[in-house]
Amino acid sequence: MRRSQLFIKTRKEAPADEESKNAQLLIRAGYIHKEMAGVYSYTLLGKTVIDNLSQIIRQEMNAVGGNEVLMSTLQNKDLWETTGRWDDKAVDNWFKSKLVSGAEVGIGLSHEEPITNMLRSYISSYKDLPVYTYQIQDKFRNELRAKSGLLRGREFLMKDLYSFSRTQSEHDKFYEKVAAAYLMIFERVGFADDITYRTFASGGIFSRFSDEFQVLSHVGEDTIYVDEAKKMAINKEVYTDENIEHLGLNKGQLSEKRAVEVGNIFALGSKYSDALGLKFTDESGQQQSIIMGCYGIGVSRLMGLLAEHFADEHGLVWPANIAPYKVYLASLGEAAEVSKAADGLYEALSQAGVSVIYDDRDERPGEKFADADLFGLPYRVVVSQKSLEQGGFELKSRTSTSTEVVPQEKLLSILSDSRQD
Amino acid sequence: MRRSQLFIKTRKEAPADEESKNAQLLIRAGYIHKEMAGVYSYTLLGKTVIDNLSQIIRQEMNAVGGNEVLMSTLQNKDLWETTGRWDDKAVDNWFKSKLVSGAEVGIGLSHEEPITNMLRSYISSYKDLPVYTYQIQDKFRNELRAKSGLLRGREFLMKDLYSFSRTQSEHDKFYEKVAAAYLMIFERVGFADDITYRTFASGGIFSRFSDEFQVLSHVGEDTIYVDEAKKMAINKEVYTDENIEHLGLNKGQLSEKRAVEVGNIFALGSKYSDALGLKFTDESGQQQSIIMGCYGIGVSRLMGLLAEHFADEHGLVWPANIAPYKVYLASLGEAAEVSKAADGLYEALSQAGVSVIYDDRDERPGEKFADADLFGLPYRVVVSQKSLEQGGFELKSRTSTSTEVVPQEKLLSILSDSRQD
Repeated sequence: MRRSQLFIKTRKEAPADEESKNAQLLIRAGYIHKEMAGVYSYTLLGKTVIDNLSQIIRQEMNAVGGNEVLMSTLQNKDLWETTGRWDDKAVDNWFKSKLVSGAEVGIGLSHEEPITNMLRSYISSYKDLPVYTYQIQDKFRNELRAKSGLLRGREFLMKDLYSFSRTQSEHDKFYEKVAAAYLMIFERVGFADDITYRTFASGGIFSRFSDEFQVLSHVGEDTIYVDEAKKMAINKEVYTDENIEHLGLNKGQLSEKRAVEVGNIFALGSKYSDALGLKFTDESGQQQSIIMGCYGIGVSRLMGLLAEHFADEHGLVWPANIAPYKVYLASLGEAAEVSKAADGLYEALSQAGVSVIYDDRDERPGEKFADADLFGLPYRVVVSQKSLEQGGFELKSRTSTSTEVVPQEKLLSILSDSRQD
Repeated sequence: MRRSQLFIKTRKEAPADEESKNAQLLIRAGYIHKEMAGVYSYTLLGKTVIDNLSQIIRQEMNAVGGNEVLMSTLQNKDLWETTGRWDDKAVDNWFKSKLVSGAEVGIGLSHEEPITNMLRSYISSYKDLPVYTYQIQDKFRNELRAKSGLLRGREFLMKDLYSFSRTQSEHDKFYEKVAAAYLMIFERVGFADDITYRTFASGGIFSRFSDEFQVLSHVGEDTIYVDEAKKMAINKEVYTDENIEHLGLNKGQLSEKRAVEVGNIFALGSKYSDALGLKFTDESGQQQSIIMGCYGIGVSRLMGLLAEHFADEHGLVWPANIAPYKVYLASLGEAAEVSKAADGLYEALSQAGVSVIYDDRDERPGEKFADADLFGLPYRVVVSQKSLEQGGFELKSRTSTSTEVVPQEKLLSILSDSRQD
C-alpha cells in the first residue's frame, strides 16, 4: 500500500481529550479514531491489526473443535428476563433501546442467553453433544467511566466461546484444552510465555476459582501474586491464607506483580441451560442438565495492551505476527534514480508476498523516519542516493538502533525468510 | 467439516412465526436462527456465505481504490444534530440509547456523519484528496414492520463506501467506476449480467437520478421498466413521461418487470462535508467544498435474495462462488468398507483444497439426500456399497437430475478443476 493512498495522518501531539496511553498512541499513529469516550473507529491500519489478532484466535479456537457463529447485537428481552439478567439491578451496564412498537430490546453485552436459546433448536440427545461454539463479535457495555482507551471500551470486539457438555468430566477436559489454547494464542500474539500467567481468580457460584490469563506488564491494572517456579499465580481478590493453602502455595514463594487480564474462563454449571430449558436425553432416556463454560478474549483490548506494552519513546512496536504490514519503505529526496529504485523495490517486495507501506510522499526525511517509528512495523527500509551509492537499501529493524545497507536480492531474502506465520 | 461436528439440524417444516421465504429456507437448512422479527444470528453455514459475499465485495472495492475501515456502532448525537438527522422527525428509524450519565447515543443506521467527521483529522489540502473509504459493518434500523427475512432486517450487514472528491468531474469519474464494479460484483455472486440492471431512481436534492442496481426476480419487491436492447431501466417511482424523454427512452420499448434492489449509489454533493466543516485548500490557497458520494450494498440482504431467487422445491441452490462448501459428501449404510472409502475420499478432497461437508451420521439415505438438497451445495457425492461395486462414487450436481459414478482420481480432478474463484 502506498502511503499516499492511506488517507491517515500522524500527529506529533497526543489528543487533548484522551487520557489513556494506548489510545493516545494509536490515535497519533492513525490506527484508530475516537468517536466518544470508550468508543473508537478503526482505520485500515487498526482494522488490519484486529484482523490479524482475530485470525490467530480463530485458528486456535477451530483447533480445539470450536464452531464459529455470529450472533445478533439486538437482544430479546424475554431471554434475559428468564435468567434474571435483564433488570438493571442485576446487570448495571446494559445499553437498551426500544422498537417502534415500544417493546424494549437490549444491545448485546454478552451472549450466554441467546446462544443457549439457539441451541434449543439443535440439541436434544446425548448424540448432539458436546457443542463448542464461538464468535468474534462486538459487545456493548454502558461503563460509567471509560478512560482506558481500548482496554475498557463501551463498544469493543470480543471472542466468546461457549461449551455445552454432557458431564462434568467432559466439561473439565475441554476447559483444560481451551486453557492450553489460550496460552498458545497469547504467545503467538507476542507475549512470551514467561510473562503470561494462568491465574486463580474469584469463581462465582459454580467453582471455587475461575481462570484469568494475566500478562505481567507495566500497563498493569491488576495485582497478582506469582510463584515463578511453579508457574502459578493468584489474583489479589482471592489472595487469602485459606486459598493459598488450598492451592498448595507458599506465601514466601509468592511475589506481587502488576498485570493485565487478557482472557478469562468461567464454569457456568447448568445455570443458563436449566433456566432456558436446554436439556438432553441420555442413553437411558433420562433428561439431563447440560454443563456450560464460557471463554472470553477481548480482541480490541488485546490490541490496546499490545500497543501500550511494547511501545517505546518513538512510538508503537508491534510483534511480527500482529503488525499490519511488515515493512515501512521510505524513499528520500526527489532524485529520479531514487524514485525508480524505490518503485522497483516496492514491486519486488509486493510480488514476494511481503506486506509493505511505501512512503512515496514528498516529505522531509525526518518526517518519514518519525512516521516509520510511530507506525511500529517490524522493519524500516530506506532508499536514498546514499544507500544506492553504497550498493543497496538501508535496512533497520524497529527495535534496533543499527542499520545496514543490503543489495536488493539479499533484502528480499531476509524479509521473505522471516515471514509472519 | 464433518456433519457430526456441525451442530445444526435441518427441519422439514418452515417455522410457524416466519413469513418470508428466504428466512424460512435458511432457517430450515440451519444457516440462520431467528432472534426476533428482522433480527437473525448466523451459524457456521450462514456466516460462511456472508464471508464469501464480503470477500468478493472487498476485492472489487479495493480494486477501485477503496480503503477499508471499521466505524463504531455507537453514534455521537452531536454529529447527527449538526446535519439535522438526529430528530426522529427527520429520520424515523433510529434505535437510540443512553449512557449511564443520561446522554443520548445513537445505534448506527448509516455512517455519512461519523466518516465525514473522522476525515476532518486527516484532510486539509487538495493533496489529501480524493479519498475513497468503505466498511463492511452492521447497521441497525428500527423498521415498523420486518417481515421480509434477510431482505429488510432491523439488524443487517452492509458494505457502505463513501467518496470524497475535489471536483464534480473527479466525483463523476469515480461514480462510474463504482457502478462498473457493482455490475462485476453482482455477476460474481451469481446474477447473470442479463438480469442485473443499473436503474434510474429518484435522486434526492443533488442529482436528477440516483442509481439502483436491480435484479429481475420473482422475489421482486420493486417494479422497474427495462429497455432490453439499450440495457437501461427506470424505477416506477420516477417513471414519468418527462423522465422517459429526458433519458432518451421510448415507452414502446420499455417492459414492466419485477425486480429486487441489490445496491444503490447516491450523489451527496457537499451536504455533509459542508455541514460538518470538512473542506480543502486548493492549489491557489482557497477553501473549497468536498463532493461526496455514497455507495451501498446490503450484504445480508444479498444473501437472502440469493437464497430465495435460486431455491427450488427441494431447498437452497447456491451459486458456486457463494456456497459455504462445494461438496456434500454422504456415506450410505454402515458397511466398514463404505465408511473407509468415504473417510478416505473426505481426506483426499480436503487435501486437494476442495471444501466438503461430510455427512458421516448414522441416518437413513433419504434423510441424507434431503439434507444435501436443502443445504444447496454445488455437488453431492454419495459413497455406497453400490457405488463402490460400480467402481467409484456417485456424483451429482445440485441442479441436475442425473448422476454418474466416477473413480476417485477422476472425481478429484472434476471437483478441483471447477474450483471456486
